Order: sequence, then structure tokens, then C-alpha cells
Amino acid sequence: MDLHGAFHVYDTTLRDGAQQEGLSLSVADKLTIARHLDDLGVGYVEGGWPGANPKDTEFFRRARTELSLRHARLAAFGATRRAGAVAADDPGVAALRDSGAGVVTLVAKSHARHVELALRTTLEENLAMVRDTVAHLVAEGQQVFLDAEHFFDGYRDDRDYALEVLRTAAEAGAELAALCDTNGGMLPGWVADVVHDVVETTGVRVGIHCHNDTGCAVANTLAAVDAGATHVQGTVNGYGERTGNADLVAVVANLELKLGRQVLPPGLLREATRTAHAVAEVTNVPPSSRQPYVGTSAFAHKAGLHASAVKVDPDLYQHTDPLGVGNDMRLLVSDMAGRASIELKGRELGFDLDADSPEGRALVGRVTERVKALESRGHTFEAADASFELLLVEEIEGRRPSYFEVESWRVITETLAHARPGEEAVSEATVKLRAGGERFVVTGEGNGPVNALDAALRAAIGQAWPEVATFELIDYKVRILDQGHGTDATTRVLIETSDGASSWVTVGVGANVVEASWAALVDGLTFGLRRHGA
Amino acid sequence: MDLHGAFHVYDTTLRDGAQQEGLSLSVADKLTIARHLDDLGVGYVEGGWPGANPKDTEFFRRARTELSLRHARLAAFGATRRAGAVAADDPGVAALRDSGAGVVTLVAKSHARHVELALRTTLEENLAMVRDTVAHLVAEGQQVFLDAEHFFDGYRDDRDYALEVLRTAAEAGAELAALCDTNGGMLPGWVADVVHDVVETTGVRVGIHCHNDTGCAVANTLAAVDAGATHVQGTVNGYGERTGNADLVAVVANLELKLGRQVLPPGLLREATRTAHAVAEVTNVPPSSRQPYVGTSAFAHKAGLHASAVKVDPDLYQHTDPLGVGNDMRLLVSDMAGRASIELKGRELGFDLDADSPEGRALVGRVTERVKALESRGHTFEAADASFELLLVEEIEGRRPSYFEVESWRVITETLAHARPGEEAVSEATVKLRAGGERFVVTGEGNGPVNALDAALRAAIGQAWPEVATFELIDYKVRILDQGHGTDATTRVLIETSDGASSWVTVGVGANVVEASWAALVDGLTFGLRRHGA
Repeated sequence: MDLHGAFHVYDTTLRDGAQQEGLSLSVADKLTIARHLDDLGVGYVEGGWPGANPKDTEFFRRARTELSLRHARLAAFGATRRAGAVAADDPGVAALRDSGAGVVTLVAKSHARHVELALRTTLEENLAMVRDTVAHLVAEGQQVFLDAEHFFDGYRDDRDYALEVLRTAAEAGAELAALCDTNGGMLPGWVADVVHDVVETTGVRVGIHCHNDTGCAVANTLAAVDAGATHVQGTVNGYGERTGNADLVAVVANLELKLGRQVLPPGLLREATRTAHAVAEVTNVPPSSRQPYVGTSAFAHKAGLHASAVKVDPDLYQHTDPLGVGNDMRLLVSDMAGRASIELKGRELGFDLDADSPEGRALVGRVTERVKALESRGHTFEAADASFELLLVEEIEGRRPSYFEVESWRVITETLAHARPGEEAVSEATVKLRAGGERFVVTGEGNGPVNALDAALRAAIGQAWPEVATFELIDYKVRILDQGHGTDATTRVLIETSDGASSWVTVGVGANVVEASWAALVDGLTFGLRRHGA
Repeated sequence: MDLHGAFHVYDTTLRDGAQQEGLSLSVADKLTIARHLDDLGVGYVEGGWPGANPKDTEFFRRARTELSLRHARLAAFGATRRAGAVAADDPGVAALRDSGAGVVTLVAKSHARHVELALRTTLEENLAMVRDTVAHLVAEGQQVFLDAEHFFDGYRDDRDYALEVLRTAAEAGAELAALCDTNGGMLPGWVADVVHDVVETTGVRVGIHCHNDTGCAVANTLAAVDAGATHVQGTVNGYGERTGNADLVAVVANLELKLGRQVLPPGLLREATRTAHAVAEVTNVPPSSRQPYVGTSAFAHKAGLHASAVKVDPDLYQHTDPLGVGNDMRLLVSDMAGRASIELKGRELGFDLDADSPEGRALVGRVTERVKALESRGHTFEAADASFELLLVEEIEGRRPSYFEVESWRVITETLAHARPGEEAVSEATVKLRAGGERFVVTGEGNGPVNALDAALRAAIGQAWPEVATFELIDYKVRILDQGHGTDATTRVLIETSDGASSWVTVGVGANVVEASWAALVDGLTFGLRRHGA
């Protein structure tokens, strides 16, 4: 069943998603995200509210020349005309009409109490505002959708009025009415009942717009589709105010993979993981590893116990093929690590360990033993693939990849004489090492000991291996293991290093947090140099 | 309708939640989390798998003397006896029987293909394993629940066999069978249909255990309850493998606030926000601000536009009263603390802030402003009562309690010449301060910078205030805020100090991890000296 065209996948990341606390998008960010959404094949990209703020106005202006979309149409969001005015003369309506998008999504009140208390006009005037604005925009050649704000609460408060708003919009020429659970308090059964009633009673084409305040935004959206909605709104990564909007990728993946409805152009669902992560790069909101379908942990399995059965039939342990959404099965090398999982993990990293040969068997055995020994001392390879790969290479090649030999290091942190609160201390590190046949003694500064060591280490190595100039330390995590022993406990540090194109994670462990960080820094640079063919 | 007692709220944070990638709990962590869960009033706390690993065995051993639960019963999780063995002779079954929990949740295969491919035994023997193990444990006085693993997939594959497993368990004396969507691929309608069929066909009491792979774990759990399940399993903050388990707090809040079912002891749902955040401090997994009901953004509204309407009727803009889950409405720009919560917190610590008097109102206002300002810079007072109390005392008494004045400090970490692996570095700190009218310059050593600073600081102060000899730093946690900026990000340190009889937590924040630790150390000693009447 191909519903593309008939069924709308409508993204509102750039408008409703951008309401998320702490999220702030530039015009360039919005253009980039729109391109990613088009790659995923969504039908509509709601770009913002032209006329309401200069940024959104500029977005639509630049979109005319800078955005060439293959799948999506751009939609402008905005309000009905003001009370007592005429749509054709309303500057807000004009901004929507002239945005160049060609699609206008008009938000209208459908909750009687909101009309009176927030909009402060009469119920009749609100209907007139809907009728007049829709009719004007349709006459001007726009495709018009209605966003019926607070619809579900309004339906409970005054069903007749809520339905009348929808009928009014449809009769004036709106193509559909998206029912909004603006406050997000609905549950799937309630959504289904209301959508069913709306479709039966009014015959209006229905869309659905959910928020996640009950943790049910995805399920509510699916319930609406099941009850007859043919237009789904949502945001990438579920961005949005409060608890966020419905996660559009999860909605679409469920529709295609679970319910057999083709709602994106065929094959494009495989862009889902890439799209979600690319958008997270633009928003600079760290993606949740647990995110359905696209999270880095979404198809990660603790190995060991089940590894042999996973080999026989992966579908026994996964609810769908991760490749369908462009994700990948990962086996976590955990403290339960058995030989089978080490072998699978090696294959995942591109090493055929050939455990059927005696050499392969011995190799896998050695690696398994070392992983177990290191994990018992506090290492983790679950999150540190790069450190695991270095260990694997060391066992395969007989020696650990090495591009420099450290002689010693020292880092001093001390209070400053004239400091501002919270900035009373500074760190200075000195590193002595040999690289490329030369000896380097380099000092680096930082606002913390690890920062200073990183600066000194990269400055020293960079003289022999210029490629480290592209490396950047992008994430740093500290965990105290064996808590309850104060500062005396074992410390585990995870460091993520990037070369701009890709990133990798290394681990360091020690009683001393600085020493653990140093080990992870050294592994991070070593892995990067090896990847760059040094 | 009061279903407490009849209806089970069953938490599996300590067992299934701990399967989350990167999450690792010590025995002390698990005991702390169990106490928080008990405060929330859950009916059952699944503590782990005694006998499967030393940590879980120790947890149940220590729980006997160290855990006194008011609401919850402890449950031990484990497998049916081995194929071909006898339950009464199986050491794994004995570990469950003897754990002291009194409740055993037995996991059993209910998917025919898993029995054959993963368990590698016959369908008949699997039934015998269930029958024999349940009967033995019931005869030994245990309350037994069955976790039917891969139930929903198994039901699709071979309905008759899946139902037979449930019947077998029930006939042998199991109180209920929790149907597990182990791979997490279900949608609410499917769950409802299966649960309905199971209840109708077998008459077995049904529980539900969902994972969030489709983004529908909460909705699936509610669908099961609607279809007749009377036992819900989930985890705090939705922790768990892959995309996590059903978020138990969201499930319970929906049941109580949306569906009118009282499933926790009356009033305890108000502990939800505090519990979720306290558990996140223990796991050291940053909580999601967007988490339904308990997230810091869950009831945050952009101020401005709607502010006046919010004043007239807050329910126009929120789906439920945030106080019902112990959360708070926030108008954005500001951070967490409202005046009411500051007042409550003060009272909790033994300070009557008397907000009805003009002085009291002004005091609460000043404290609220300072808490907001500090939280916006990364402080947290949720877990750091001692730091909050110092701030409160400072505002009440007009000056911060102070027993020493620090002049400067310095800490050096450097590599040792002849060191063993993992012990290559040592730290040395020098602290200069005045206390009791004298000036002290003291040097301390440690296996890390904070350890060395702690040693030097306590040695210096101890000469003026001998009571610090009884103080010990017993827990140290580091969190990198604002991740994605590498070692350049803000660091938050929580330090727990003990005097042998009691302990208290202080917080420090700074760009420099050593400086943040120093601030928390100083607060920790100051608070202890004040408590000891110095």
C-alpha cells in the first residue's frame, strides 16, 4: 500500500521543536536541518512563523533561493487574522501569504475557554477569523492546513464548538485540520475516540499533533492514524517545549516497519539514523543513546550469554532489522564477554578472527582473557570501541601501535592571585616525550589539569605528526568506581576524540583521575594516528 | 478505587534497569536506590539475581540487616532449574530460595524457538523446568512470580505453547505471569489483544513488562492494564537495555492522575520527582530535562505570551497539577527553585522561615534568587543539602559560617620514576591558610589531586580544630555538565563527608575539576565543624 502523497509526514522541528528549552537555531541552522529533512523524504517542512520574528522572516526569504527540496514542501506557520479586522488587510496574514512557501498552516483556537480567556474575543468572532483567513489564503492560491490548538481539551470542554471550528475551516477551503494535544495530557484510547468521532461526524480530513507529557506522544499519534488521521506532525529527536513533541522518526518507523504503511518515498527510512544524528549536530543537543530506532544503544546487546543464539538467528533478539532505519546491531563487550562475542565484535570492527583455525582460536582466547582482566580492574569496553580495537591490534600484530614514547609528565593546578569567583585556579602541564626520532619538552596551559595535559601532549606530538592538529577532544566523562571510598577510589575516564569527520572513544582507569585521563588521551591520539594511516 | 495491595507496582531498576549501557551500580548504590524506591511506595523492588554474580549475592546478604522497607517487598530474580536437573538440588534455585527476599521472580522461556535455539532443550522439558521450579519454591514458602520472556513474540510464533507455559506456572503455584515484550517491538493495540486473550483463555493473573524500542513502552503498559493486567513492571527514569524499560514513574502517574487508579500509598506520588532525580544522582546518568512528569522542563512554560492567561487559570496550559508528582511549574528564564519549595526545604532542615512575616518573605526571596543564580551556573542543591544549609545560614545570620581563611593552594601531579602500571603518578598538595588565629602551611600527599588536597586541608585545619580528625571523605562524584565541549566544560563535584555517626553532601562547581572539588571539600569541612558546635 503506497500512501505517499495521500498521507502527509509533516515535520515541525524548525517551529515547534525550536520551542525546546535551551535550543536556539540560526537561519543557517534551519536551512541545514531543512535539507536533512528533505533527504529523509518528509512531505512537509514547517519552517517557522514569517512576520512574527525577523529570523523566521529571513529563513523564508533565503529559502527561496538557497533551498532546493526534492521531496518536501515548505510550510509557513501563523495565526488567523486579528479580531475585528479583515484578513485581506491583516499584515500578519500577508506575511504568510507572501512567504513563498505555498503552504500555510494556520493555528486557530478550538477550545471555547481559550477563545474567551486568552484570545479575549467571542466564540462567533473566532469562527469568523477562521473562515475569513482560510478563504482569503485559499483564494490567493495557498494550500491551507488548520492547526486546531488545544483541540482535545476543547473537545472535552465544549465538543460542539470544537467541531464547529473544524467544519468552518474545511468549508472555507482548508485541506485538513490537525488536532493538537497542545498540553500533552492525552492517552491513546482517548485520542482514538476523539479522532474517530471527528472523522465520522464532520467528514473533515484529520491530522494529528501530539506532545509527550504523558510519555505517549508516539502511541497517541499512531492511535490517531488508526482512527483515521492521514497527516502526522512531529519533530526530529522529539524536540519541543516541556517534554517535547512526538518523535517523527519513531512514528514513521512504526508506520512503515510495524504497520506496513509506506509513508516516506521507498528506501528513505534508511536515512533515519543519519538524519537524527545530523540534526542533533546542528542543534548541539546531545542525542539520547536510548532513543527508539536511532539511538546508539537502540540495537546494542550485552554479549556473552546470548551471543551464540544471536549468531544462529539475530531476529530472536531484535524487534526489527536495524539496517531498515540505517542503524546497526552492536554487541557490547561487557564483563560477561565470552569468546563468541569477542569474535563477533572483532568482525564488526572489520577483523576476521577466524575462530575455526587454531591460531584464530588462540587469538580470541588471549583477547577474551585480557578484556576480562582489564574489566575487573575497572575498564569498560562497552563505550570504548577505540581502546578495544587498539587491544585487538596489539594481540594480532604482536605489539601495540605506538607513535611516541612518553618519558614523563607533570601538571600543576594552583590558585591565582587576582581571580574571579569560580575561576580561582589555573593548570599548567609539562610533557616530555620522543616522537619521530626527536625529543620534545612542551608546556601547555588549561582551565583544568586534563585540559592542560591535552594541550601539551598534542603540541608535542603535533611537531612529529601534524595530523593531530585536526583532532579535538569533544567529550570527557568521569566516573568514580567503587564509590564509598572517597577520593581514594578507582576512577574511570572516557574520552571522545574527533577528527572532524568521525569520532572515537577511549578509556583510561587509575586511582588518580589525572593519570586515568592521561591514559585515555594517549589512546585517543594513538587510535586517531593509526586511522589516519600514520 | 483503591487497588493498592491488589495491584502491583513492581520496580526492576536494580536488575533490568542496570542492564543499561554504561550503567554500573555498586552494592551501596543498590541499597540507596532501594530506599528511594521504598520512599516512593512501590510494592516490589527486584534487587538482582542472587547466585549469578557476587555483587547481587552480596546485595541480598546486606539487605537483610541494612534495608528496612516500609512499603516494598524485595524480590529475587533468577532462572528456572537447569534442563535435566531437579529444582530441589539446583544451586541456582537454592540461591533464590535462600536470598531472604521472600519473593522470587522466575524468568522462563515462553517462545518455542527460544527454547530450542537458545535454551537448547525440548518444549516438554521447559514446561517441566517451570513446573518443578515453581512448585519447589512455593513449597518452600516463597511468593513466586513468573517472568514469561519473549512472550509476545512467542505468542505470535506458537500461541498454544506460550499459553501452556503460563498455565503450567499458575498450576504449580505461581501467583502471576508477567508477560515480557523482551525485544520491545510491540504496539499498544497488539499488547491489548494478547493480554485480553491470555486473561480470557487461561484465567492466569497477568503482569506486564515492556521495553521502549517502538517508543511505546508506557502506552503498551497502560494498554495491558486496560486489558486486565494487574501488575506493572518498569524502571526509574526508564533505565534499561537498548532503548530502556517502561518508565515506571510515568506509568504510575498516568494510572493515578489520568485513569483514577490509586496504585501507590496515598500521597506518595508526590515523591516522584525527588525519587527520579535522587536515583539519577546515584546512577550518575544525567536525567533528561524532557522526561514526562519529572523532567526539569516538564512543566516549564515560555513566559511572556501566555503569562497572564496562566495566572487566570493555570490549567489552561498544563495537563495536570505539577505538585501531584512533586514537580513545579516554571516560567522560563528562571531555573528550578520556587519560593514554596525553598520554604519547604528550609522547614525540612529545621529552619522555620515564616514566609507570612515581611522578614520571612524577604529572606525566602533572597534565598530563592541565590539558588536560581547558582543553579544557572551548574550547582545542584537537590543532592547537596549541606551546601544548601550553609547558604540558608548565611542568609539568616548575615555571614557564611567560616572556621578558616584560605590564602592559596597548589597541587602537583606527576609521573613517578619507578612505577607499577596504573600507579605511575602521584599528587602532592600545599595549602596555606589561617585558622584559630594562626597561619598554617601544610603539604599533603595522595594518589590523586583531590585526595592530596583533602589530606593537606584537613591536616592544616586539624591543628586548630581537632574534631576534623573524625571526618572522612566517603563519596566523591564528578559530572561534566554541558557535554560536547570536551575538557573545557563545566564540572560539578559532589562530596559526601562522614563523622562516623552521620554524613552530609556538599557541591562544588567550576571549569576546573580540581577547583570544583576544592569548593566542595571546604564546604564539607565547614558544615561538619558547624554541626559539631565549633
